Amino acid sequence: MQNFIFHNPTKIIFGKGEVKRLGKETAKFGKKALLVYGKSSILKNGVYDQVTTSLKQAGVAFVDFPGVKSNPVLSHVEKGIELARKENVDVVLGVGGGSVIDSAKVIAAGVKVDHSVWDFFTYTQTVKDALPILAVATVSASASEMNNGAVLTKEDCCYKFGMASRYFQPRVSILDPSTLFSLDKEYSAYSSIDAIAHMLEAYFNTSANSTILQDRLNESLIKTVMESTDVIMKKPDDYDARANVMWASVVGFNGITTAGMGFSAFPAHMIEHALSALYDIAHGAGLSIVLPAWMIWAREEKKDRLARFAQEVFSVNNTDNLKAADKGTAKLKSWFASLGAPVSLKEANITENDVEKIADNAVNNAQMWGMTSYTKEVIVEILTNAK
Amino acid sequence: MQNFIFHNPTKIIFGKGEVKRLGKETAKFGKKALLVYGKSSILKNGVYDQVTTSLKQAGVAFVDFPGVKSNPVLSHVEKGIELARKENVDVVLGVGGGSVIDSAKVIAAGVKVDHSVWDFFTYTQTVKDALPILAVATVSASASEMNNGAVLTKEDCCYKFGMASRYFQPRVSILDPSTLFSLDKEYSAYSSIDAIAHMLEAYFNTSANSTILQDRLNESLIKTVMESTDVIMKKPDDYDARANVMWASVVGFNGITTAGMGFSAFPAHMIEHALSALYDIAHGAGLSIVLPAWMIWAREEKKDRLARFAQEVFSVNNTDNLKAADKGTAKLKSWFASLGAPVSLKEANITENDVEKIADNAVNNAQMWGMTSYTKEVIVEILTNAK
Repeated sequence: MQNFIFHNPTKIIFGKGEVKRLGKETAKFGKKALLVYGKSSILKNGVYDQVTTSLKQAGVAFVDFPGVKSNPVLSHVEKGIELARKENVDVVLGVGGGSVIDSAKVIAAGVKVDHSVWDFFTYTQTVKDALPILAVATVSASASEMNNGAVLTKEDCCYKFGMASRYFQPRVSILDPSTLFSLDKEYSAYSSIDAIAHMLEAYFNTSANSTILQDRLNESLIKTVMESTDVIMKKPDDYDARANVMWASVVGFNGITTAGMGFSAFPAHMIEHALSALYDIAHGAGLSIVLPAWMIWAREEKKDRLARFAQEVFSVNNTDNLKAADKGTAKLKSWFASLGAPVSLKEANITENDVEKIADNAVNNAQMWGMTSYTKEVIVEILTNAK
Repeated sequence: MQNFIFHNPTKIIFGKGEVKRLGKETAKFGKKALLVYGKSSILKNGVYDQVTTSLKQAGVAFVDFPGVKSNPVLSHVEKGIELARKENVDVVLGVGGGSVIDSAKVIAAGVKVDHSVWDFFTYTQTVKDALPILAVATVSASASEMNNGAVLTKEDCCYKFGMASRYFQPRVSILDPSTLFSLDKEYSAYSSIDAIAHMLEAYFNTSANSTILQDRLNESLIKTVMESTDVIMKKPDDYDARANVMWASVVGFNGITTAGMGFSAFPAHMIEHALSALYDIAHGAGLSIVLPAWMIWAREEKKDRLARFAQEVFSVNNTDNLKAADKGTAKLKSWFASLGAPVSLKEANITENDVEKIADNAVNNAQMWGMTSYTKEVIVEILTNAK
């Protein structure tokens, strides 16, 4: 086990009917809030009403800032910063999925600086302060509701970058699994794939030698997400299945399962960020294409890790680790496909002629994330497995 | 899954050589510290030197308060409060195992009140403030280094009570697995048994219907603690084994694995507290006697939970859950015995004539902990399985 620091002070309020607590929790941090959300989903499923009623009851004024898209973009965040300044809000609330919460985080930090927030994502500036951030998570996947990360896309230059700061850690996050009942099958699948990909990337790419504890925790979460997602595909309003996915996504990416694993490269995410930057593709859909392709590419180098995964998650019994690894990869890919997620570029309507262009974009991420062994050639090779 | 709040703001600094960070971390909270510790072990294993050197380098003054015993007692804590007041310390440091850290917590709260701290443990007073608490854990088991609990014994009336307060949550805890190298086999075994008992009590006694996620997390931790303890018995300085036990103990009792499980009774702890209150017995040794006895008593009512445990942890395959349950209980008891821990009252030199007396003491805890179904008769019945 490698040395680590674990510090995750976010207060989680989890369960049916808990959104009503938002007002009181917000009132601890300020009197006026910027309410960041996406499109119409929270209006349709009643969460917007629950949120605004709760804020009103607690005497917290709020200003709406809707319109966050999946893969949130810089220009929209900049508008949010402008509005937050103009309205002089004390606190930023993100009500939605990872894109919304990430936007809320960047707005909260952006209010405090004169330069572009993009400078945070190119590591030319550091976040030194932010307004308090609270979240109501209505999609599970990113665990942004209980971690310090945020991802942003700059549209004009087509880059999707990620960064982390302790100021991005939400003070309070409310998670009500029943808010997920109205999430469609497509996005339910993408969310689970994203959550699993977070865990698997750390699991496959750990730099520690001894990770049996973390391996078992990750396997426990992955198996539970898979089983529960299968239930959700048939019964979208199964409370326990939604609760399992919602909480497992958070536990799997809030630092507890990776503590002691040292630095883990996130190659599938690195390449997926290029896909999302260049095409209108959901993050989970991109991962569904890239992760199995990476596993095929890594079959020899990572055969022991891949074989353990195959055995523990898919009960593959094969003493030949390479064969076990291949079986596990095939089974994961089939499972992604069974959810209706794309498992090739073609299925996402991305032509194989674009592989070089995608690799050019991804190689930038690789350098930014300290994954210098992922050259353009390597990335092309991985993407070739996803044609 | 049941609704829950999870909020654990303790910063954990984990790993070899990390005790040296204590001074800088302490300096964030004050200039003068009360240094609470046990007997000679931290002097022998070099931790005392590491701690005091670090404090001096950070310019933090400190006053020694040694002498905490296993199962810490009220009278000693009261002396600590007196010293903390006299010396006007800003912060309380606990350097040792659960008993030391618990003592530090109670002293930190005791400084702030005029009444006896025992009132906190009888729930007649509430903790409303405390000095900042930091810990260096040198024994793993209680997870006190990352939770809000504390246990105290009142010698004259022979009661060992526990309570929790958010003010008891350490600000920072440092865990260096190599500080455990000098822990003898006996206490290494007791620590692991205690850690496993925390997880198993929640696992067996959950009030939630759907706990597959939490079950798997707990099983992962229990299996890892067991395997690692077996390694430690042969090789006390195996770093990864020590690290696994140290971190698994914390993760297994810091709230993350129980979130969503609702109220769990802790019957084995409830009865063990009576043993520790009445006899000079280590907490882990007491649990080693009581937990299997409770499992035998609960074999019918809890047969499905016990059978799952048998299957997942000991690979017991038996479609008859009652038989599987019995096998699992026998295997756990054998494993405790294999570590040299007592598995009967007799082995701990407690005469069976005392069963009534122990039950009289335990029934007080049962009432305090809201476990009213545990009458004296029931407790006698359980203890009879431990003769």
